[in-house]
Amino acid sequence: SKELYTIFSHSTTLVHMVVVVVLVNISSFLVLQVISIKDNDSLAARLAVEMKADLLILLSDVEGLYNSPPGTNDAKLIDIFYSGDQQSITYGTKSRVGIGGMEAKVKAALWALQGGTSVVIANGTNPKITGQVITDIVEGKKVGTFFSEVKPAGPSVEEQTEMARNSGRILASLHPDQKLCTLLLTERKNEILAANKMDMKMAVSAGRLPSAMLKRLSLSSVKLSSLAVGLHQIAKAAQDSVGRVVRRTRVAPSLELEQVTVPIGVLLVIFEARPDCLPQTCFSVSALAIASGNALLLKGGKEAANTNRVLHQLTQEALSLHGVREAVQMVNTHEEVEDLCRLDKVIDLIVPRGSSQLVRDIQRAAKGIPVLGHSEGICHVYVDADADVDKVIKIVRDSKCDYPAACNSMETLLIHREILRTPMFDKIIEMLRIEQVKIHSGPRFASYLTFSPSEASSLRTEYSDLECCLEVVDGVEEAVEHIHKYGSSHTDVIVTENKETAERFLQQLDSACVFWNASSRFADGYRFGLGAEVGISTARIHARGPVGLEGLLTTKWVLRGDGHTVADFSESGSRKYLHENIPVDLRFPESVFKVFL
Amino acid sequence: SKELYTIFSHSTTLVHMVVVVVLVNISSFLVLQVISIKDNDSLAARLAVEMKADLLILLSDVEGLYNSPPGTNDAKLIDIFYSGDQQSITYGTKSRVGIGGMEAKVKAALWALQGGTSVVIANGTNPKITGQVITDIVEGKKVGTFFSEVKPAGPSVEEQTEMARNSGRILASLHPDQKLCTLLLTERKNEILAANKMDMKMAVSAGRLPSAMLKRLSLSSVKLSSLAVGLHQIAKAAQDSVGRVVRRTRVAPSLELEQVTVPIGVLLVIFEARPDCLPQTCFSVSALAIASGNALLLKGGKEAANTNRVLHQLTQEALSLHGVREAVQMVNTHEEVEDLCRLDKVIDLIVPRGSSQLVRDIQRAAKGIPVLGHSEGICHVYVDADADVDKVIKIVRDSKCDYPAACNSMETLLIHREILRTPMFDKIIEMLRIEQVKIHSGPRFASYLTFSPSEASSLRTEYSDLECCLEVVDGVEEAVEHIHKYGSSHTDVIVTENKETAERFLQQLDSACVFWNASSRFADGYRFGLGAEVGISTARIHARGPVGLEGLLTTKWVLRGDGHTVADFSESGSRKYLHENIPVDLRFPESVFKVFL
Repeated sequence: SKELYTIFSHSTTLVHMVVVVVLVNISSFLVLQVISIKDNDSLAARLAVEMKADLLILLSDVEGLYNSPPGTNDAKLIDIFYSGDQQSITYGTKSRVGIGGMEAKVKAALWALQGGTSVVIANGTNPKITGQVITDIVEGKKVGTFFSEVKPAGPSVEEQTEMARNSGRILASLHPDQKLCTLLLTERKNEILAANKMDMKMAVSAGRLPSAMLKRLSLSSVKLSSLAVGLHQIAKAAQDSVGRVVRRTRVAPSLELEQVTVPIGVLLVIFEARPDCLPQTCFSVSALAIASGNALLLKGGKEAANTNRVLHQLTQEALSLHGVREAVQMVNTHEEVEDLCRLDKVIDLIVPRGSSQLVRDIQRAAKGIPVLGHSEGICHVYVDADADVDKVIKIVRDSKCDYPAACNSMETLLIHREILRTPMFDKIIEMLRIEQVKIHSGPRFASYLTFSPSEASSLRTEYSDLECCLEVVDGVEEAVEHIHKYGSSHTDVIVTENKETAERFLQQLDSACVFWNASSRFADGYRFGLGAEVGISTARIHARGPVGLEGLLTTKWVLRGDGHTVADFSESGSRKYLHENIPVDLRFPESVFKVFL
Repeated sequence: SKELYTIFSHSTTLVHMVVVVVLVNISSFLVLQVISIKDNDSLAARLAVEMKADLLILLSDVEGLYNSPPGTNDAKLIDIFYSGDQQSITYGTKSRVGIGGMEAKVKAALWALQGGTSVVIANGTNPKITGQVITDIVEGKKVGTFFSEVKPAGPSVEEQTEMARNSGRILASLHPDQKLCTLLLTERKNEILAANKMDMKMAVSAGRLPSAMLKRLSLSSVKLSSLAVGLHQIAKAAQDSVGRVVRRTRVAPSLELEQVTVPIGVLLVIFEARPDCLPQTCFSVSALAIASGNALLLKGGKEAANTNRVLHQLTQEALSLHGVREAVQMVNTHEEVEDLCRLDKVIDLIVPRGSSQLVRDIQRAAKGIPVLGHSEGICHVYVDADADVDKVIKIVRDSKCDYPAACNSMETLLIHREILRTPMFDKIIEMLRIEQVKIHSGPRFASYLTFSPSEASSLRTEYSDLECCLEVVDGVEEAVEHIHKYGSSHTDVIVTENKETAERFLQQLDSACVFWNASSRFADGYRFGLGAEVGISTARIHARGPVGLEGLLTTKWVLRGDGHTVADFSESGSRKYLHENIPVDLRFPESVFKVFL
């Protein structure tokens, strides 16, 4: 199976010419008597340089170049190999490169690099994905080992993650009081405001942001003070939550079990480059992570870049007081989100903050790493036959119009059949007209009218705007059924004065948030009293609905014994399990908070 | 871009000849004046039948045939289209098939089917994966719509899941007492034992199981009684756990928030076809699921098929008392695990029970569905310089030898440098020798010896047998470092009389279970007093370590108001948040259990 062929591609802007050399399962050498060409690898390198190719892809039967023989302890794939590292590979070739033939490939690669051709060594043995490997490489994705002339300044994202985890482990073991210190905001208010002014200036000159957005981007002394109050709440919540014993059992005499809350580990928080992702949100999430003892990788949005940089500097300064400066890392490089998501061995949880599209993309990309986020917010308000008209108007208006782009705003209004053609119905429609809410009719609602609004193309639409779907149901049972079928299990509301109907809705409906006579917009960590919000989760495990500090915690089991073995407790053994519950103190003793501004 | 080509494949046993017709972006019809061949589709069908091809693949620009136009409400891809359904498609072609051209494909497909050629319509527009689509189809994976002559007896797995979810929602809303009734085991003991005898007979005649395994597979009156006791524990635990208010907040006057535990939804429990997966385990997991109000899909192991079938029948009979018979479904078809894992819209959690390879495979296959399981159990016992020799011998022996194949058995023994060449060291080695434990030496341990045992090929090995690695460390800090680097965060043990050293280990070590002077084998739901065990999780979110009933629960937020809107609480609004914590009653009132045998 000797195969050697070249492909010329003109499809991308970056790479004008690509030489692909398939070197899989070479059983004998090509007989070519040209100087210094001893094998396919050197032939390919020669050819690539001769052709002035931008990129040479060498396909092997391993993933790429490893720092030690693949399969042994700590063998790690080298993502980027810099020609400056050449010296080290000359010294230690035998031990560093475990697969025969890789040495020849590396030599050829370095030779091609000197000749001006970039090189990737990747795995080409899987016939199903080889095609994808080549296109992935051409698209600049991280596949195999990339050979580069220049070493970039600063650590790689892998190195950053490693630093974050190591610092994070120390952070986690700090006393709550010490962690609180790290939240300290010094009198650097002016520095923050100056950076924010720069962001504002750039946003104004770019001219892309509507004034309402600009207002949200802008920081002020007052906003910073309320941020400090929020940090205070977080610090307090952390003291009550982290290191808390949630269960205590006497398994047997002198054998006691505790389940204790601990930080999850390393979090990756990704902010979408959009104005919704404000510096205070970014800072609050950092604070939540630190307070809960988690290490953090932050990939921030562009709009608030300057403000975020200063806030991050302050955070690192505060962290360095306890030698854990590296626990929070900004990922500023051009790392693709997809590449970050590949770091499943080192990142424990991804929190995307942004549009539901971002969340979906990341859920798809995150192989093996859990993602905390909401994919969609298709929230319903059901107006029951026994509803009070004033409450209906207030709640429907607030649910739809308070902030239509929010994930917790109403997308579908369900009304009881008996309300149709009543004064209450007219009042609802009148209010929606005044608020300029565009109505799309559900099929059943349309069937009742001679002239109906345009029919909704789907009952599953997230309008995220001053639009909503209106549909008719026969009662609470059908409302629940409709929401189970078309909703996204985010937040759903019933408006009724009938307590029994309400309780049936609250109990039967399978959504993260179920509300009675209250606006769907209350579904929010701050409004729930959680201090701040990591995000809202529509996942069904771990954390559901608005997620505060507790969503960043997991537990570990601590067992203290005196030489106990399970053999002693076997059928033929001498001991019996007690399994006695021991009461747990729910709270830490109050201690002093150290949050200043 | 008119392309038509055929591929002949002889690589699989099932499909001897495959005709592949690429019909992507056809902009004009082929000009072929043959009877009834109007387009590529009919041409392909003709050709396939003429050639007596086993399979015709029609590639389109949609995923396959939908039950209503793709993109509209409820549009669902039809996995298998039976020729018996032909009538219905003749009636409703226009509304059922939304994409122009699909009608022609369906006609061609049905025509080919009558001629004896099976047909798959799938998406061929993605150039990156088209090759994979074809090979996936040939390998029998569920891709696109498969046209079949015969409708199989019984519901499809999608229908089963749907039934399970619907029944599950009713199950979840039952009163705890009613759920307990469903755990009722009647006097059908003999039926169960008879079925178990059949399994035993088959296992013996197959002759594959060692006698120890046979003993575990066998049920007895005594075992059934202890199973009933376990069910009693589960029922009790469920009463305390499900529907529990875990947090209560007065958000504002007349606006009260509750966080309540609820079942997760639909669980898929996959038992590996291996003798470890015993009927009682399978039944306990069912009981845990039902008690917690979850719907359940069970894919069972072969060895205990008869016993499991009877137990499942009894379960369904009990469930039918409350009209929720369908809440537990056995997936008996030849469904591939990979296909089940694709049902991410309907399955909320997958629990694989079996080898770590099974767990890894399922984690890889489960796109978007969380998986609760442990991928590896590389557990350590660290013997400190201050350890007591008797406890060391007891704990090391129990951790390694009690059940070497278990995930919570010791794989690496770390010893403090100062212990080397002491009587304690000799005693450890002597004990391991007597127990016939093969020792692999770590690099540092090897360096101390003139003649060392064979070096461990990796410090990350899960031997799962009477083998272990032995390595030397300088103290507790280095032990923690070693475990962080090579462990799997499952269960790790320190043996020492020094309380300070022990607490440092327990606090700093980042594993699901950290033990002091107790065998690693205690890491188990039953031994922890959780009643029964869903499994052990090495994931860091949701549930960690041994997982009991609580791992099958999530929470929902219930907010009860009186017409509250968030606008009232805005900066310009009239109201202020209270966020008062209201104490919660931790327990349900005791009630009567109804578990009989």
